[in-house]
Amino acid sequence: MTFGRQVRGREVAVIGAGKTPFGAFAGEDLRTLSVTAGRKALVNAGLEPSAIEAFYLGNFAGPEFTAQNHLAPWISTALGMTGIPSTRFEAACASSGSAFFHAFMAVASGIYDVVMVAGVEKMTCQPTPRVTEILAGAGDGSSEVRVGSTFPSLFAMIARRHMHDFGTTREHLSSVAVKNHENGALNPDAQMRKVITLEQAMNARPIAEPLNLYDCSLISDGAAAVILCAADRARSFTDKPIKVLGVAQASDYVALDRKPEITTFPALRAAAQQAYAMAGVAAKEIEFAELHDCFTIAEIVAMEDLGFVERGRGGFFSFEGGTRRDGPMPINASGGLKSKGHPVGATGVGQICDIIQQLRCEAGDRQLRRHSLGLAQNLGGSGATCVVTILGRD
Amino acid sequence: MTFGRQVRGREVAVIGAGKTPFGAFAGEDLRTLSVTAGRKALVNAGLEPSAIEAFYLGNFAGPEFTAQNHLAPWISTALGMTGIPSTRFEAACASSGSAFFHAFMAVASGIYDVVMVAGVEKMTCQPTPRVTEILAGAGDGSSEVRVGSTFPSLFAMIARRHMHDFGTTREHLSSVAVKNHENGALNPDAQMRKVITLEQAMNARPIAEPLNLYDCSLISDGAAAVILCAADRARSFTDKPIKVLGVAQASDYVALDRKPEITTFPALRAAAQQAYAMAGVAAKEIEFAELHDCFTIAEIVAMEDLGFVERGRGGFFSFEGGTRRDGPMPINASGGLKSKGHPVGATGVGQICDIIQQLRCEAGDRQLRRHSLGLAQNLGGSGATCVVTILGRD
Repeated sequence: MTFGRQVRGREVAVIGAGKTPFGAFAGEDLRTLSVTAGRKALVNAGLEPSAIEAFYLGNFAGPEFTAQNHLAPWISTALGMTGIPSTRFEAACASSGSAFFHAFMAVASGIYDVVMVAGVEKMTCQPTPRVTEILAGAGDGSSEVRVGSTFPSLFAMIARRHMHDFGTTREHLSSVAVKNHENGALNPDAQMRKVITLEQAMNARPIAEPLNLYDCSLISDGAAAVILCAADRARSFTDKPIKVLGVAQASDYVALDRKPEITTFPALRAAAQQAYAMAGVAAKEIEFAELHDCFTIAEIVAMEDLGFVERGRGGFFSFEGGTRRDGPMPINASGGLKSKGHPVGATGVGQICDIIQQLRCEAGDRQLRRHSLGLAQNLGGSGATCVVTILGRD
Repeated sequence: MTFGRQVRGREVAVIGAGKTPFGAFAGEDLRTLSVTAGRKALVNAGLEPSAIEAFYLGNFAGPEFTAQNHLAPWISTALGMTGIPSTRFEAACASSGSAFFHAFMAVASGIYDVVMVAGVEKMTCQPTPRVTEILAGAGDGSSEVRVGSTFPSLFAMIARRHMHDFGTTREHLSSVAVKNHENGALNPDAQMRKVITLEQAMNARPIAEPLNLYDCSLISDGAAAVILCAADRARSFTDKPIKVLGVAQASDYVALDRKPEITTFPALRAAAQQAYAMAGVAAKEIEFAELHDCFTIAEIVAMEDLGFVERGRGGFFSFEGGTRRDGPMPINASGGLKSKGHPVGATGVGQICDIIQQLRCEAGDRQLRRHSLGLAQNLGGSGATCVVTILGRD
């Protein structure tokens, strides 16, 4: 692996960030959502569209949800950018994390000075069964999906196995949902601003046992955008530049049945190790994180694979309050995918925006005490793609 | 624009190339096609899958054609590659040209030494009306497509305007088809190996007037792959390395009605200028080219925008035999999209494979006399994305 080479490239900073609220917005399409987020990021950086040298768009399934494809130039021209390379990146629910990774490489290597990375998804225009079917495209159609699996059922198997192997309980899973709803209730941009009790979370209607309604993230519309810049130029645009300290993407088999163990994701572990090495930090130094809680069990597996807790201890740690805003490792202070919403193609860059908000001390009621080093983890499918990004204050 | 920076990066070579035949293959899916092409490229470079540090996949509409999404790791793991970044690039029919552009940047900038770029599409599993509908996703669903335009009708408008403004004739258009069929008849991997007469080409049934059946490219399945490597290491893998002298991607409005003129594509001109500048060559030095003849008029516009002929003269030049294999500027010696086939996501890398075959003097009956400097031009939509690549013998 030559990832270490990136460390020798230029330093890269985020100089602008912008998001739409996440939710169900009947009057918005992929383009209007993206333009709103992109314009916010431009204003935040104090830039005109003409300053952007390349456009990186993360989107998972726009064509299936909306019939519009060729999305990158469709959106970038509406933002006032023509002539530049404008490309869509697809890596399932890690699509915009992947776009961010590629944009980072292009700036770090000196090809571009200023680029925009955006993520978008428009999901609520389809009925739920069709949404589930489209999302199942991120699984393996030749095996697991062919025999009827959907993502709730795949993560249900992961949860069941985690419970069997490590003693994780139904309460543990629900503690993730309760905490994320508590955080999301304080987030004005969250889709579901609703506090729930552990009892409510445990007794909700089953979706794919052991997962119930409150173990599953939401169907959402939304967009997010950031502007990356060579770090040595960042302070000419903003007095609050955020440094990209490490970022890595890794892959693995799409089909769950191809994995020797289903309660750990090798792509997640590989991306984490590479990002830590690039940033020169250890897991225990990370102060807070936005993790990909598409299902409650996914947050538990991620905190283990990232090395925040020992393998098998994620459920216990969550239940004991370790991941609450006042705990030793606050996770998903934004509300997470569970409460904030999960417009899949927007989620990766959205997480990065949430980390930036904390680093800049702009998170209002959700502001964390320790906020100088944050990590975002974006997952595609049941672990076939993972992107890990580490951000810090300059 | 900072494209010039790439010139100061490392030199990049293609060390392996492989393609499937293009055609209708009922027994093949996106993965089997890609694995065939990828394995051929690995064998051609004498590499094991473990040598590949990142996987770049171009695919336009796999999810709509086949319901399988998250394609990059689904394919790369089947090729024996895990752990590495594995990403799908979508830029309509320029998807794999765009993947190639991004892969080139990553190697030129020193991030990776050895990467694979592949392109794939599986189209024949859908009936033709549905194929046309899926392809229309590369147009603007909020304007032109909403009012009923499909790509044949959009390019028909371009052709009609070109005829009006420049005196291009029905014979001129057909001369492109006749020449490409003549070339494709000599290509064992072409989908339609059939010589046609000018009379046949002119009198075929209308599709969208003035375009008829022989003005339109084919609906195809197929895949293509190349392996890129830092040029200073290339000769340790192959004695026939091909240098990537220039490559650029540019974008423009998706909707035809947003363009001030429809008989020239600004994104094509921008990409061409940048690729020429990077390669340090002028249009007149290019010896042969593979152009994106999705429709006959597209080949005519491309040869003008690339500066091979003056604006408005493309049809005349073609009719006079200028683009034949024995002409001053051989175009689409492979048969082009018209005869070779157009599995859209595979087309960009497929064109690069065709250029390489000529540069390596491996094109059999189609081998051109001058074969040291070739150009590939890959178009997305009606000009919203364009990638231009210039390749030469080392």
